[in-house]
Order: sequence, then C-alpha cells, then structure tokens
Amino acid sequence: MTSTHELSAEQTAREDDLVQRVLRSFDNCESPRLDQILRSLVRHLHGFLREVRLTEAEWNTGIEFLTAVGHITDDTRQEFILLSDVLGASMQTIAINNEAYGDATEATVFGPFFVEGSPCIDNGGDIAFGAKGQPCWVEGTVTDTDGNPVPGARIEVWEADNDGFYDVQYVDDRVAARAHLFTDEDGGYRFWAITPTPYPIPHDGPVGRMLAAAGRSPMRASHLHFMVTAPGTRRLVTHIFVRGDDLLFTDTVFGVKESLVKDFVRQPTGTPTPDGRPLDGDWSQVRFDIVLAPFDAS
Amino acid sequence: MTSTHELSAEQTAREDDLVQRVLRSFDNCESPRLDQILRSLVRHLHGFLREVRLTEAEWNTGIEFLTAVGHITDDTRQEFILLSDVLGASMQTIAINNEAYGDATEATVFGPFFVEGSPCIDNGGDIAFGAKGQPCWVEGTVTDTDGNPVPGARIEVWEADNDGFYDVQYVDDRVAARAHLFTDEDGGYRFWAITPTPYPIPHDGPVGRMLAAAGRSPMRASHLHFMVTAPGTRRLVTHIFVRGDDLLFTDTVFGVKESLVKDFVRQPTGTPTPDGRPLDGDWSQVRFDIVLAPFDAS
Repeated sequence: MTSTHELSAEQTAREDDLVQRVLRSFDNCESPRLDQILRSLVRHLHGFLREVRLTEAEWNTGIEFLTAVGHITDDTRQEFILLSDVLGASMQTIAINNEAYGDATEATVFGPFFVEGSPCIDNGGDIAFGAKGQPCWVEGTVTDTDGNPVPGARIEVWEADNDGFYDVQYVDDRVAARAHLFTDEDGGYRFWAITPTPYPIPHDGPVGRMLAAAGRSPMRASHLHFMVTAPGTRRLVTHIFVRGDDLLFTDTVFGVKESLVKDFVRQPTGTPTPDGRPLDGDWSQVRFDIVLAPFDAS
Repeated sequence: MTSTHELSAEQTAREDDLVQRVLRSFDNCESPRLDQILRSLVRHLHGFLREVRLTEAEWNTGIEFLTAVGHITDDTRQEFILLSDVLGASMQTIAINNEAYGDATEATVFGPFFVEGSPCIDNGGDIAFGAKGQPCWVEGTVTDTDGNPVPGARIEVWEADNDGFYDVQYVDDRVAARAHLFTDEDGGYRFWAITPTPYPIPHDGPVGRMLAAAGRSPMRASHLHFMVTAPGTRRLVTHIFVRGDDLLFTDTVFGVKESLVKDFVRQPTGTPTPDGRPLDGDWSQVRFDIVLAPFDAS
C-alpha cells in the first residue's frame, strides 16, 4: 500500500490522535531531558511512518533487519554503530557536539578502532610498529583559535595498515599503527606513520546487505585518525584524508570534510628524509596544522 | 550540550550539507521504494538528532540500549516489537494499513501471541479449554459495509487467562484460550470465552526499563483478540476492550479505540445462560458486531 491518494479527514484524525496519545504517555516522565528526547523521537518516527505509508510487510522487514543487527553485534562487532555511521547519524552527532568555532579544526567520526593505552613515542618516532605500508612523515602544529601554540597537547594517532586492517583486527595481540605523542614547547609535532589506504567497513552483515540494496559502496576514504587533547581546549577527534582519493565523495560514513583533505606528497625513492632516516623505497609527507577550540565552545 | 542558543550560519550549513550528502548516497538505489523509505528515514532521523541536539553521551546510551534490545531478543522474546509497540509505531502502522472506510470495524495491534492452527469450535463452543477465568458469552454478527451478512467468515479468537498468561507462555504445550469458528448462514457467531483481565507486557528487559524511566506503566488494558477473514473483504485484526477498565486510557501499546470498548455485562450466579449451560458462579456477556471493509479498501 504505497498509494498516494488523499487521506480522508477521519483517517487523518485517527493518525493524528494516535501521535497525541503517544506523546501524552510521557506526561509523568520525571526527567525533562528524557521527556524531550522521547517526544521528539515519537514525532519524527510517526512522521516517517506516515510519510512513506509503511506497509505491514515493510514493518516486518524492519523488525527482522533490527533483529539481525542485534544478533551479529557482540564484544568485537558493533553493527548498531555501523548502522548509525552509514545513515550519517554518527557524523551528525559529531557535528552537533563540535560546533563551528572560528578556524577550529573540524571533527569527524571516532570509529570503533581507538584503543586506550597506546604506546607513547617521542616526536619524530614511528607509530607503525611493523604495520605494512608506505612510510609517511606527518608534521604540524597545534594552536588555539587565537593562534597561540599549545605545548604538551596529547596527540593520539591510529590507522589501518596497507591491507585495510587495524591491529585490533589482527589474529594476534600485536599493537601496530597506533601511538601517542605530545607537542613540543612550540606546539609542534612530527612522526612517521604509513600513508593511509582505503578499506571497507565490515559488510558481511545486515548493514552491508542494506548498503548493497541501496547501491552504495562499503568503502571508507583513506584516512589517518587523530584525537587531540589539551587543558582548556575542546577535545578534537578527527581524521585527515588523502587529496586525490577517488573515495572522498562516497566515504560510506560521511566523514570527509573538505578542510580535512590534505596533500600527501609522494617522495621518490632516494629523496632525503626530514630526519635523515634511511629508506629503501618511496615515501610520502603531509602537513596537518591543528587548531583547538576553547573548552567552553558551544 | 542541550543548549538552545542560536546556531551560527556556518554550523547550520554544515549540518544541512551533511543531510544532503547522506541523501545523495542513495542516488544509485535501484528500488524506488527502498530509495523513498531510506531518504525519508534519513530526513527524520537527522531532524530528530538536530532538534534535540543529541549529546555524544546520549548517542552512546542509545547504542547501548539498542544493543540490549538486540541481545534479549530470541525465538520467544521479540524486544524490537515491544519497542515498536510502546512507541506507538506498531499501532500507527496498523492505522496506515487499515484506513477508515465507512463503518468498518477499526483494527488494532496484532500482538505476539497469535498461533496458527488453533482448535476449530462450533458456534456456541468454548475457547477456554481449561484456561482460568470468569466465563464470558461472546456473540455478534459479521457484515460488510453495506450491511449484508457475511456467512462462513473465519473468526480467530485468543486471549490471556486470569493470571495474565497466554497458553504459549505456559511451561507445557497445552492449547488454551484460543480457537477459531465460522459465522453461520446469517453471519452470526457465538462462543464461550473468559472475561478479559489486564496483564503487563514483558518488562524485565530494556523496553521495561525505558517505560519505568519515562514514568509509564507496562500494563495492557483487558482485551480479547479477534482476526476475521472472509473472501472479498479486508482482513480485520482487532481486539475488544472492557468498558470501565482503568487501563483503557494508558494501554501501553496504544491499542484502545473508543469504538472497540464494549459492555461486558456481569451476570450474577444463577442467571440462566444463553445456551442453558449450567455454571457454578457468575459470568459475563458481551456483544460485538463486526463490519468488514471490502478487500480493495485503501
């Protein structure tokens, strides 16, 4: 029943009345915030059902889909987060909670692959720890929105290897392609990583089937994760992306912002490295200057 | 961050742009209906997130809630249906798919307790099969919306016992308080059942916790289920409710319609029964005349 005929006054009244009855059911909710969230959820949920005139068969399909999402989810696979990601809900939540503030660096999705307790490296160190990929020299500064350097900012970085896997996806317990370091007294930082390469989100489950049915790719654009924290500033969770990557415009979790697309400049074999490190093959170099909003930026 | 300050133009543009990017991701969807559903879902989902300015902590709570709903769901417990029920989404889907048509009897929620293959009884038979409760004589007619009797209509009836349990919730395999019968040549039907009593939906899981947090009861108003089918008519799934039940206005799945509230008239011990059946105690009597919409009623 996907008909688009005009509804009778009686039918419209019945549907409106139901929405009002559901809203009134929250009249005794003691938490104003929960009340606000549930009422808004109900209005939008019913708006969706009425707009598409959802059939009972489609409702059943929806229940089966959510059931499958629930059943594949376990301690290492979070299909509800994937679902939120591919609908742009994760990215919208990030946007809402990291409002535009001066020239503060834009945030993007956190993703499921951050791990507490990463190795600490010195400036100039290497986060790869054996992860396969083209070496990449990353450097930049951390400043506040007034342009002042932020010394001692903690920078967590993590990324997938050349095969598209994070260390937590390895069969052993190796830690690789993740570390943290601190900015120097001038707010500067620099480290070796590997040039980011694209990979798919897990797509062997219900979310992957939904993407396929919707004609969408499960691929993420190539990226390197950053989380930057410093006293008095708003925590920044972001990525940098590789200019020229074909996937920039179809990143399946909508994480790409133009301001986060950077030039990863390829350096041919034999090009002297910034720190004199000898390398057998080619490498790349990227600059990422980070601007932190104040802690109380709305 | 539940602030209600005015958003900057830049912030609004970022949030709008994200919604547009998500919508464009469905440009290659080959099913027009799936495309329509996903775009509407995305617009309403993002509308919700932006309206309540969902915090990242609340987003996490939402993911944890859905994960818990998924994990308690198994072959005999369907928490996603409960969630749909208590948000009124099930009832709205029923309303959408059973549009008002003349004086056709209103539909209500199907619920999880219907079972195929119920016992067949003759008119005047008893559906209780030993289920505990006050005997209740149910009678009425089935007609079409032009007032013509519908002979041979199949009527499935099912209900909870006096303890609030359906037979499928018993620890043994007994079949009780469910049966089907057929209208006679005048469209009439009559049977013994038990007077409906209230019961809670399963509320020891995440949906029950949500109801408690929202100040809502998990109770359903007392009701007797009907499913009526006949050639050339729209299938009717409905209940009748007991006039005077305190729970009529707070039915936790929003199934009550005024037109479905009936007089269950109490008959003192010793009152002669309609079919001469001897009874030790009091009993009740209710009339429910059913009107079926035509098959092609929109």
